[in-house]
Amino acid sequence: TLQHLFKQIFQLSLGLQEDDNRKALLVSRKKKPEDTIVDLKGIKIGNGEQHLITGPCSVESYEQVREVAEAMKAQGLKLLRGGAFKPRTSPYDFQGLGKEGLEILKRVAEELDMVVISEVMNPNDVEMACEYIDVIQIGARNMQNFDLLKEVGGTDKPVLLKRGLSATIDEFVKAAEYILAKGNGNVMLCERGIRTYERATRNTLDISAVPILKQETHLPVLVDVTHSTGRRDLLLPTAKAAFAIGADAIMAEVHPDPAVALSDSAQQMDISQFNDFVQSLRDAGLYKL
Amino acid sequence: TLQHLFKQIFQLSLGLQEDDNRKALLVSRKKKPEDTIVDLKGIKIGNGEQHLITGPCSVESYEQVREVAEAMKAQGLKLLRGGAFKPRTSPYDFQGLGKEGLEILKRVAEELDMVVISEVMNPNDVEMACEYIDVIQIGARNMQNFDLLKEVGGTDKPVLLKRGLSATIDEFVKAAEYILAKGNGNVMLCERGIRTYERATRNTLDISAVPILKQETHLPVLVDVTHSTGRRDLLLPTAKAAFAIGADAIMAEVHPDPAVALSDSAQQMDISQFNDFVQSLRDAGLYKL
Amino acid sequence: TLQHLFKQIFQLSLGLQEDDNRKALLVSRKKKPEDTIVDLKGIKIGNGEQHLITGPCSVESYEQVREVAEAMKAQGLKLLRGGAFKPRTSPYDFQGLGKEGLEILKRVAEELDMVVISEVMNPNDVEMACEYIDVIQIGARNMQNFDLLKEVGGTDKPVLLKRGLSATIDEFVKAAEYILAKGNGNVMLCERGIRTYERATRNTLDISAVPILKQETHLPVLVDVTHSTGRRDLLLPTAKAAFAIGADAIMAEVHPDPAVALSDSAQQMDISQFNDFVQSLRDAGLYKL
Amino acid sequence: TLQHLFKQIFQLSLGLQEDDNRKALLVSRKKKPEDTIVDLKGIKIGNGEQHLITGPCSVESYEQVREVAEAMKAQGLKLLRGGAFKPRTSPYDFQGLGKEGLEILKRVAEELDMVVISEVMNPNDVEMACEYIDVIQIGARNMQNFDLLKEVGGTDKPVLLKRGLSATIDEFVKAAEYILAKGNGNVMLCERGIRTYERATRNTLDISAVPILKQETHLPVLVDVTHSTGRRDLLLPTAKAAFAIGADAIMAEVHPDPAVALSDSAQQMDISQFNDFVQSLRDAGLYKL
Repeated sequence: TLQHLFKQIFQLSLGLQEDDNRKALLVSRKKKPEDTIVDLKGIKIGNGEQHLITGPCSVESYEQVREVAEAMKAQGLKLLRGGAFKPRTSPYDFQGLGKEGLEILKRVAEELDMVVISEVMNPNDVEMACEYIDVIQIGARNMQNFDLLKEVGGTDKPVLLKRGLSATIDEFVKAAEYILAKGNGNVMLCERGIRTYERATRNTLDISAVPILKQETHLPVLVDVTHSTGRRDLLLPTAKAAFAIGADAIMAEVHPDPAVALSDSAQQMDISQFNDFVQSLRDAGLYKL
Repeated sequence: TLQHLFKQIFQLSLGLQEDDNRKALLVSRKKKPEDTIVDLKGIKIGNGEQHLITGPCSVESYEQVREVAEAMKAQGLKLLRGGAFKPRTSPYDFQGLGKEGLEILKRVAEELDMVVISEVMNPNDVEMACEYIDVIQIGARNMQNFDLLKEVGGTDKPVLLKRGLSATIDEFVKAAEYILAKGNGNVMLCERGIRTYERATRNTLDISAVPILKQETHLPVLVDVTHSTGRRDLLLPTAKAAFAIGADAIMAEVHPDPAVALSDSAQQMDISQFNDFVQSLRDAGLYKL
Repeated sequence: TLQHLFKQIFQLSLGLQEDDNRKALLVSRKKKPEDTIVDLKGIKIGNGEQHLITGPCSVESYEQVREVAEAMKAQGLKLLRGGAFKPRTSPYDFQGLGKEGLEILKRVAEELDMVVISEVMNPNDVEMACEYIDVIQIGARNMQNFDLLKEVGGTDKPVLLKRGLSATIDEFVKAAEYILAKGNGNVMLCERGIRTYERATRNTLDISAVPILKQETHLPVLVDVTHSTGRRDLLLPTAKAAFAIGADAIMAEVHPDPAVALSDSAQQMDISQFNDFVQSLRDAGLYKL
Repeated sequence: TLQHLFKQIFQLSLGLQEDDNRKALLVSRKKKPEDTIVDLKGIKIGNGEQHLITGPCSVESYEQVREVAEAMKAQGLKLLRGGAFKPRTSPYDFQGLGKEGLEILKRVAEELDMVVISEVMNPNDVEMACEYIDVIQIGARNMQNFDLLKEVGGTDKPVLLKRGLSATIDEFVKAAEYILAKGNGNVMLCERGIRTYERATRNTLDISAVPILKQETHLPVLVDVTHSTGRRDLLLPTAKAAFAIGADAIMAEVHPDPAVALSDSAQQMDISQFNDFVQSLRDAGLYKL
């Protein structure tokens, strides 16, 4: 019927508009065809080299961070992540050392010439945190904390944005757009597993998200193998898959003594496992740095 | 083997500890067997009566809010919700009128003696917003914005906490615990649909969550039929189900002219549909106020 | 661009074609506006009255079925379901009594004048089973066992088709279409919970599916409260919701001694709980037969 | 309390029993530590070499299958899959050529010395199909079609079992157990994507399932990159990831002219794309045969 045709034409024009919006996104390859390379104190993410980002889930003490950092250093790794502000399901779980944790990270980084990545959860903390850290991490639970995104968009710090627990790729891309729209183009996207019905892993690593994000955006794409699997025995195989599919960097958690870690003890590697992990990736020809 | 038995006993003791933790939660019925009744300027939520909470998705103008509020008033409804701070997937979507929206809500509420419910997204805005609104809403995307939960936990305003898009019931309950742990016991839980594979509805209304939350906690439990379905034609049937299963209140969106609404136009009722909605619930014997 | 417009027009015409397909479905209201009423030996399903279908998960013995059936009879219920062929995750779980189970069901049904509903899993068993049972149930795991659907489509027995564990509503409707396309129009659709990330219930009852299926098809719509929740304590509240939203019948499992049941012991009611269940639905004005 | 402790001990013993069951599974590494190597007419799957299994989604004609097979042959591939019995959502979609399709596959296989893999859906068709094909495929929709599993378990043909659309890994493993329990140990497991909320891909490739299945069972593990992504542009990157993580073989669909394919036109490669696909895997050092 005629009425129906008009309705279809209306929907068609909506489609065209949607298409234009996508074209207009700052994160889109249509807007900027060439890869964005994010510079982390001299280490380039997004230039084709593939990196490892490691460190403890939570910063617990200077000694703990230092021990992990030394092990990283011995392997030639400089990208150190550690949590000072910890989003925890229960208010009675360890909430992180806060500013004190950032101070520890900065001290170790200065001693060993490393790059510090740490999560910020509150817009109020962004300015303070920037004095201590080199890369601001936005965690999965805050992917759509839009005031936080706007706040970090107003800084010139590189941002590591994690995909939300059940965010679509489209929502993920638009969350990054919030940051670019405020003027900060140094954004890295991190796939960290999505929530599905499957219980064998903590989350389901959506490995296909890597090539999709690389195609649709010009931003570097990372994979967090620790949180996507929640299982120490899966870190190595999923890291291989992530490098093979083209991830610009892989994140994994390391703790001197995982059994007594204040968070995520079941999924962190100890130093010896970490060394095996790096070596195995090198032996497989997948990690070349 | 013996080693295996010890491992089992260890896991057993972990189970006991978990059980104790649950017992200790302030939101738990084990801690407080009797129902919490939240007082919204004289309207009691949680005392067995069942209420309707309605209003426009976004506050757009004084005239728009006033028109909806008058229609509510004519039906004897006083619980007015409207969004001033809007969490939107894209930074280029309408972000709400902000403080100006709160002023409009307060003005209409004073003129017509209504109770105002509105979402706050940023911990920094809580104190300011409390001057304008009667109930602080925490939206689904902010269910695990822990700094925001702590901030509202420090006020004495009633809080309407929405379940996250893919939050488990356990995570939802623990998010509420963040608020109670800071001293604010006036919390209402709102089921608003969860993210699943099904595409016939915007989200999947998890109706079973209502009796589970009523059993496990002493807090009032609400159902948002608008966001859980995303379809105007499902508001009435799902509202019937929600009242029948024991929801303390139902939330639904009303707009004078949904077709031109600045957000969620496909799922809001117009004034005439709203009147039919309320009348149908009354006719079915499910809405008695 | 012009090329783009042509592409859009092509997609538009695809949309129109899809729309026509939907119109053409035999299950669709567009094809047959009036409700289909399925006659189960004199009991009409789909005529506005709301029924209860109960019985044990698995047929275990004549005495077991007889005891449940007598309790049903005392409550005025005649629709008896029991499983003889049991789809079980593990090959080492009880697989049902098979044909012997059907004989028991038929014997009890004849003694007490009841209607028997039982699942068939193998196309080869359909003809044999039809000699014993009044309604063929197709279980969730077999919703897309297309040869089985075609086989029951070739009989004149009423069919109770359960929604697959992760079937979309569209797939569910098209599975029913397989049966109607073979000439059997006596199909009843049964929502039984879908698989989601939530673990507080065995599945997530998709209550919104009921009004959607009632709108899009002319077939009766049932709700299985046992399998959708997997929790005895949720049977009554979800049954209330299902009746309030317009389900034509509710299915629930009853066993004389659930603790020793050969399957699903955690979710079946015993006789006393069953009597309370029926009485509570009557008291709430929701079950009127 | 004492009562509680007894309950815990009871649950503990249930856990031990569950553990014993797992140990007892024929598919388990605990039962058989060494890898099962399935012999497909001389081609060994599971011995550490990594293979490609390709062919058209549906068998449409002798010419079509022959053209694909010749392209495979030119690349040195011998494992030819093609669908003769097609499980389709709608009864009005192309249902496959049935027995005629099997005849075409056999004819081409004999002409070009290839191995034929094809799906069987009905227990009644198994015996007949075995005269034409070398490997029986059980599709995702039939993973829990237990009578079909038992039937193929009674043959001596290799079986390629696909994971169900929303099957857990535990359910998948137990479905394979149905086949081994009937005496057929030549089973290959195939991850083919699971149903999640994400819509950018047809399904979500659960890449972590590969190492989990390799650890827990002794069976070969395959990855179907076509059905897990539903996107031609993702076949190569996901194939790289699958080989890197240790899949024993990868399945992908090839059609001489995908645009006119009778099923799955959007996700099949044409001959030229197929050649590029194989070459790219070889260039990356991931496909060595």
